[in-house]
Amino acid sequence: MLFYDCATAPSPRRVRIFIAEKGIDVPVQQIDLRNGEHLQPEFRAKNPDCTVPALELDDGTVLAESLAICTYLEALHPEPPLMGRTDVERAQVLMWNARIERTGLSGVGESFRNHSKGFIGRAVTGSESFDQIPQLVPRGRRMAELFMANLDERLASNEFIVGDAFTMADITALVTIDMAAWIKLPIPAACEHLKRWHDSVSARPSART
Amino acid sequence: MLFYDCATAPSPRRVRIFIAEKGIDVPVQQIDLRNGEHLQPEFRAKNPDCTVPALELDDGTVLAESLAICTYLEALHPEPPLMGRTDVERAQVLMWNARIERTGLSGVGESFRNHSKGFIGRAVTGSESFDQIPQLVPRGRRMAELFMANLDERLASNEFIVGDAFTMADITALVTIDMAAWIKLPIPAACEHLKRWHDSVSARPSART
Repeated sequence: MLFYDCATAPSPRRVRIFIAEKGIDVPVQQIDLRNGEHLQPEFRAKNPDCTVPALELDDGTVLAESLAICTYLEALHPEPPLMGRTDVERAQVLMWNARIERTGLSGVGESFRNHSKGFIGRAVTGSESFDQIPQLVPRGRRMAELFMANLDERLASNEFIVGDAFTMADITALVTIDMAAWIKLPIPAACEHLKRWHDSVSARPSART
Repeated sequence: MLFYDCATAPSPRRVRIFIAEKGIDVPVQQIDLRNGEHLQPEFRAKNPDCTVPALELDDGTVLAESLAICTYLEALHPEPPLMGRTDVERAQVLMWNARIERTGLSGVGESFRNHSKGFIGRAVTGSESFDQIPQLVPRGRRMAELFMANLDERLASNEFIVGDAFTMADITALVTIDMAAWIKLPIPAACEHLKRWHDSVSARPSART
């Protein structure tokens, strides 16, 4: 098994945290996104989508997309459970993970990619060229603000996002909120529950990655 | 159990097809998106995100997001398997489902919502007001074209998206391609494998919904 990572990128950080929480050891190969290594033929042959994280299995099968990779690792290493402990919890983890991706992660990502000079001509993930759209900078920021307010409300009555255990949903939210620093969007002072949760999950050893 | 549906909307169609493939009977309540029923207090109390599909369980728990709902139904009704039959297949279904959502479904959706008069001031899913951004119309269309070309390549050597069985990944792709008619984007003539697959999955009784 080989984990294609990029130590400075938020998306593969979701898998890094997941692996650290599981306490397992997975060989890692760094892909240098800054210098376009993900767009070169060698990596493109592994993952035609040119995205990290990716996980190559011993038979050569390559899995991409954080949720797919983490679900596979959960099947191999069920303890501690990070995808929910019952059918309903598993569905709730997927629900929150999808919500966080669609609102927060997508909002922060679009706000950053459509502004940063490093992403001129590469405003959409993947190998194709897309121009930046300046209106997506404030739109993405507003989506991220709404995500934070919604998550604060959820955390008012829940220690973690799904009930009383740390899950993949918390990982996706943590990575999103830390990435929001790239668009200079801190947790608003009014979001006290979100702040309490963020302090708590950031103190876990897995968050250091 | 109660399934909150909207018969004219593509997202809940994913769950409708899933339910039809399982051959199960789930009570349905239609939510009139056109007249804003999803934004009213009654539905908002069920799903604060104001999205359909949603599934209310007998204890009052409400699940939203297609993937979460379908994964829950798969756990209750494992046959026929629609989320993969092995750990690797399950991961591949999630990988393709995520790719199709991120490129095709999102591309078609953005191209449509940022153009249609019916979505003025509601260009982003949910209850908040967002202006339309005209540049997203061609960007979304281009993303959808790339999605079709990539899927055609995949289907050159696979009967279905993940190997030899119909899965959730096929459902998400079918709904995406049928929704592309809303932006007047047919399957390009060059995509012969995609056309063969689309004819085949469209002929399934579940596709009639």
